[in-house]
Amino acid sequence: MQDRQIRVIGIGTGDPEHLTLQAVRALSDVDAVFVLDKRAETADLVDIRKRICAAHIRNPHRVVTVEDPPRERRPADYGATVEAWHAARAERLEAAFAAELDTGQVGAILVWGDPALYDSTLRILDRIASRGRLALSYAVIPGLSSVQVLAARHGVPLNAIGGPVLITTGRRLAAGWPEDAESVVVMLDGDPSFAHLDPDLTIYWGAYLGSPDEILVSGRLGTVGDEIRRVRGEARARHGWIMDIYLLRRLAA
Amino acid sequence: MQDRQIRVIGIGTGDPEHLTLQAVRALSDVDAVFVLDKRAETADLVDIRKRICAAHIRNPHRVVTVEDPPRERRPADYGATVEAWHAARAERLEAAFAAELDTGQVGAILVWGDPALYDSTLRILDRIASRGRLALSYAVIPGLSSVQVLAARHGVPLNAIGGPVLITTGRRLAAGWPEDAESVVVMLDGDPSFAHLDPDLTIYWGAYLGSPDEILVSGRLGTVGDEIRRVRGEARARHGWIMDIYLLRRLAA
Ligand SMILES: C[S@@+](CC[C@H](N)C(=O)[O-])C[C@H]1O[C@@H](n2cnc3c(N)ncnc32)[C@H](O)[C@@H]1O
Ligand SMILES: C[S@@+](CC[C@H](N)C(=O)[O-])C[C@H]1O[C@@H](n2cnc3c(N)ncnc32)[C@H](O)[C@@H]1O
Repeated sequence: MQDRQIRVIGIGTGDPEHLTLQAVRALSDVDAVFVLDKRAETADLVDIRKRICAAHIRNPHRVVTVEDPPRERRPADYGATVEAWHAARAERLEAAFAAELDTGQVGAILVWGDPALYDSTLRILDRIASRGRLALSYAVIPGLSSVQVLAARHGVPLNAIGGPVLITTGRRLAAGWPEDAESVVVMLDGDPSFAHLDPDLTIYWGAYLGSPDEILVSGRLGTVGDEIRRVRGEARARHGWIMDIYLLRRLAA
Repeated sequence: MQDRQIRVIGIGTGDPEHLTLQAVRALSDVDAVFVLDKRAETADLVDIRKRICAAHIRNPHRVVTVEDPPRERRPADYGATVEAWHAARAERLEAAFAAELDTGQVGAILVWGDPALYDSTLRILDRIASRGRLALSYAVIPGLSSVQVLAARHGVPLNAIGGPVLITTGRRLAAGWPEDAESVVVMLDGDPSFAHLDPDLTIYWGAYLGSPDEILVSGRLGTVGDEIRRVRGEARARHGWIMDIYLLRRLAA
């Protein structure tokens, strides 16, 4: 019996031209596109996904939405609840693969940015594979991540010469500047506060990168930090949502 | 007077299909391609660059090689010598732009992987811009980096859930496991030694990623570390060169 094949395709961060030629080819002959947790997506993101599918999928194909299971708000046992929730997610996706793909058919999951960075798709597929109930093979097609698009739009390298780059989250940065760090990229920061950081850091900030609404601000943190918070608040109110990321550097590179 | 325009184009790591649609469009109408330090390139890399240019540049165009200035082997004053060498590199490239591009024309520099990671092109252009002698504008087109291709080919995320990712060099890793690190990507490691590291780390190693010669090995470091060193040595001897990268993870993600 032939496996069902799943392609996890990174689509970049908002510009349909972020797609690689490899991604274009991987999309061309899929039989179904699986959309995870549509509720989390804004209208703009849904729209980009639709445009990409329409432009590049040649086959007649189905679009299958797999909603996340409901999440318990105040679980008694946090660890066990999260574990059960992840298991339920995997089960739903597995059921959708079984129902919507014949053996030998190909399904695609379009992932924002690069599938390897702060995205749960690969972990869910790994769970399904470990359960071993559905014969499944999967391939990952890398995509431009917001990290690279940020650096490109500012025209700067991520690393100082021969230096390391740390990619981290707003939550972790809140605990303080990471020891020995020179170049730090911060993602998933719902409310950036720069007050606890060295004002002499250089910041390169970007929002809605790759889209027509892109905003860029850079400079000495102590000088432009407040402006970034203001611009960010305004943009977020205007759009109803925001995706932003920033690079902090200790020294001019 | 119109500026000369330079496009710094990330081409991915060896598969011509790593190019993004944006990169394909950026290449289509260039007037000249500037190749920096051809001596550093192996025949395979030269070949990929040629194929990309032939496939995507629609204009009649020139290919201009800009050799690096000779490097002093045992400089008396290291800092000053490096600085002079960088200045000389920028001067050579600036002269090539002036000679080979008319105002309003477009030049391209093709960068391996992503231009933001361990590549000197942006620093050289920044020097030329700072000198202010040549009216120049430049744009960066991001490309897939070896970091992402490594993760994609192994089918794994770079980060643990909500965790940070450190990208660093073999030289720095030799000094020991970075404090608090969970996921570490190591590039530019000319002779990977794992002896000083925790054997219970998980390693995902890849060489010649994206090319037909790609090699992947993964597993518990203490178990597969020796095999990686052996496979690496053999491949290097066979090809005459090697490009490899690895992800080390403290816990199964
Ligand atoms: C759940 S993570 C997904 C990251 C994605 N896989 C990638 O490779 O960029 C979402 C975070 O990525 C960053 N991000 C994604 N797209 C972005 C964009 N277009 N502009 C700015 N930041 C973006 C933001 O930091 C956001 O909080
Ligand atoms: C000078 S850096 C350039 C990195 C490049 N700008 C990028 O984004 O991948 C060269 C290092 O990148 C990594 N690398 C680049 N291409 C690779 C490939 N095809 N396979 C494995 N490693 C690669 C290796 O660690 C190598 O030592």
